[in-house]
Amino acid sequence: MATVHLVGDDEAGSDAAAVFADIRKTRNSDFINNFWRALAVDPVLLKRTWEEVKAIMTAPGALDPLTREMIYIAVSAANGCAYCVHSHTASARAKGMTDAQYGELLSVVALAGKTNHIANAMQIPIDPEFDAGAARSR
Amino acid sequence: MATVHLVGDDEAGSDAAAVFADIRKTRNSDFINNFWRALAVDPVLLKRTWEEVKAIMTAPGALDPLTREMIYIAVSAANGCAYCVHSHTASARAKGMTDAQYGELLSVVALAGKTNHIANAMQIPIDPEFDAGAARSR
Amino acid sequence: MATVHLVGDDEAGSDAAAVFADIRKTRNSDFINNFWRALAVDPVLLKRTWEEVKAIMTAPGALDPLTREMIYIAVSAANGCAYCVHSHTASARAKGMTDAQYGELLSVVALAGKTNHIANAMQIPIDPEFDAGAARSR
Amino acid sequence: MATVHLVGDDEAGSDAAAVFADIRKTRNSDFINNFWRALAVDPVLLKRTWEEVKAIMTAPGALDPLTREMIYIAVSAANGCAYCVHSHTASARAKGMTDAQYGELLSVVALAGKTNHIANAMQIPIDPEFDAGAARSR
Amino acid sequence: MATVHLVGDDEAGSDAAAVFADIRKTRNSDFINNFWRALAVDPVLLKRTWEEVKAIMTAPGALDPLTREMIYIAVSAANGCAYCVHSHTASARAKGMTDAQYGELLSVVALAGKTNHIANAMQIPIDPEFDAGAARSR
Amino acid sequence: MATVHLVGDDEAGSDAAAVFADIRKTRNSDFINNFWRALAVDPVLLKRTWEEVKAIMTAPGALDPLTREMIYIAVSAANGCAYCVHSHTASARAKGMTDAQYGELLSVVALAGKTNHIANAMQIPIDPEFDAGAARSR
Repeated sequence: MATVHLVGDDEAGSDAAAVFADIRKTRNSDFINNFWRALAVDPVLLKRTWEEVKAIMTAPGALDPLTREMIYIAVSAANGCAYCVHSHTASARAKGMTDAQYGELLSVVALAGKTNHIANAMQIPIDPEFDAGAARSR
Repeated sequence: MATVHLVGDDEAGSDAAAVFADIRKTRNSDFINNFWRALAVDPVLLKRTWEEVKAIMTAPGALDPLTREMIYIAVSAANGCAYCVHSHTASARAKGMTDAQYGELLSVVALAGKTNHIANAMQIPIDPEFDAGAARSR
Repeated sequence: MATVHLVGDDEAGSDAAAVFADIRKTRNSDFINNFWRALAVDPVLLKRTWEEVKAIMTAPGALDPLTREMIYIAVSAANGCAYCVHSHTASARAKGMTDAQYGELLSVVALAGKTNHIANAMQIPIDPEFDAGAARSR
Repeated sequence: MATVHLVGDDEAGSDAAAVFADIRKTRNSDFINNFWRALAVDPVLLKRTWEEVKAIMTAPGALDPLTREMIYIAVSAANGCAYCVHSHTASARAKGMTDAQYGELLSVVALAGKTNHIANAMQIPIDPEFDAGAARSR
Repeated sequence: MATVHLVGDDEAGSDAAAVFADIRKTRNSDFINNFWRALAVDPVLLKRTWEEVKAIMTAPGALDPLTREMIYIAVSAANGCAYCVHSHTASARAKGMTDAQYGELLSVVALAGKTNHIANAMQIPIDPEFDAGAARSR
Repeated sequence: MATVHLVGDDEAGSDAAAVFADIRKTRNSDFINNFWRALAVDPVLLKRTWEEVKAIMTAPGALDPLTREMIYIAVSAANGCAYCVHSHTASARAKGMTDAQYGELLSVVALAGKTNHIANAMQIPIDPEFDAGAARSR
């Protein structure tokens, strides 16, 4: 099931094909997962999204790539996005996530889900001590 | 605004007071934030929740405490929990989160929010390559 | 803050005024809460929504009115709707919800929030034993 | 999988059958999709829901029917409702949604998902310039 | 599809096996549903979650067990958790939920979903009459 | 309340100041709303986000700018993003949204919220007629 046809390699126009080629080169793999084949129905959206994913998830930075993947999984679980949970859990494992790390990730996601529901159910007022709007300056 | 009265130190029964004391001892701080003062209306829920938070967020483990806080923030942002976002961003900063780390956290959360919406809008079928149900065994 | 002007009694057109009058009569109270004053900017939406609320929340049925309010609170907490959480917690209390009942409601909402996040994070396949599509017939 | 048996034409009681007949007449099609067959387990809920859908989605109004379908898709994607995304994307296409319009719809939904996550993660205070509560009067 | 291997009886380590045994004993049934088989990849999370479920969902209390299941379903529907909706609807039926009760549960969940969206779309300010933070004291 | 300091004009570094200048030029207004002042704590995220907003919300396309704003509001309401609801409702009004259009937008958002909850609560199987994955080809 999908709302669009998944674009095969032989169906991709030149703009989509160029993105597919960059995905393959960046990942050093021939595999193009369905997310990109679906987005290929709109090559502008495909290119913008891929370039953002490439910049944010693979460039060197202050967080290591595995930490970024675990944050991605956390958001995707909270949003109930089955596709994203599956694809980024696979990515996290490919980047070395151990069973122990995964178990702790699940425990934190579960705990946050729990306390989010409590705080939203009780509409707990935010302590002024947590306000950074006034206290910090760059 | 809140759906309950926030329990002050002089209003807490013995069960709630014992939890307040353990929070102060564990954190080495006199500050009890409103989340615990609200939960104190149900001492059983207060105690169960605090013990889980203490076990998951502060015990040694495979993920460092700052990474756990960032995962917590990610879930709370996705769930739109204002209280939890504020309290755990403050915790992450207290544990050393730099501006560069925070910027990357926001970038990953934003990107995941974006692609979650795309995948949910297109109902993209999950690639069989991502299925771990059959492939892994312990 | 609001995206619309809240309609005062002296500003309401005849259609909105008629709904306000029915709210007052049904509830036997002069108080019109802000939800209805905001909806009054669209009298058709106001009337349709009030009639649905009246039918579902106050008519005799298989669930007692307090149980319906607690279900309402549960959905509103999960959706992070601050207004709805506040208004229906007040309604539940007015219908006799005890502190013990409220504490259990919070405990179930918190637990469901937790396991929802776990199940969504692990994308656990649904046991065929839970499928009612085939098994039941009327 | 479903939590209820889907009601076939030969199983529908007279109230459900009357709604099925009105759906067929309104849409000028024999096809009854599963949403209505599931709701038929509660004929009151079936009838109320169908009449609301008919009134809001098909009556003449200030928004053209295709715009209404795109708004419906946007909400359904944000809520992760697989069924609703599929059924309303099919409806939008039947009402003439082009590939270019669909691509822009996806782009706006994705962007909103992204900035919603940023604003929720940073808990950005609302500018007083956006408050319509005081400024507008009817 | 799943992000983990589901742990079979013959694969469970002693900690997981002890939880499986307690589930069977508590429920007086040999059936272990997939939720627990997935969680078994992290025996600590498995044990903590099961003990919480057992305490909250089965212990005597101020809410009857069927009411608790309906609240659980409400949260799970709002969060779009397919697994939890299926498993707890089955539990609610096993505890005697009638078709009439289920129809009313659906009606309240649907109405709450509707008004949550209205209140969130209009950002309706909370009436001071609903504030319990100041008014109640224990 | 906010998790960051809002960057004033005199505090912005050169990268942030350049984005602020482009916002002012594009909108032909001196007003910089808080969203951009918060994002300015990470000039890379600020620039990337602004350029995407500019491209998607203001460039000529297949959907008129007001329709895009209404889709934006719909997603933001579903996600409970108070800031985004306020800012984009103001934008929609500035682009000519009438009270009648706004009323219909609210009605569709409310109806989608309702049926999303029903479909998620019943886990209704998707009709094969809605599958575009196989049927369409470009």
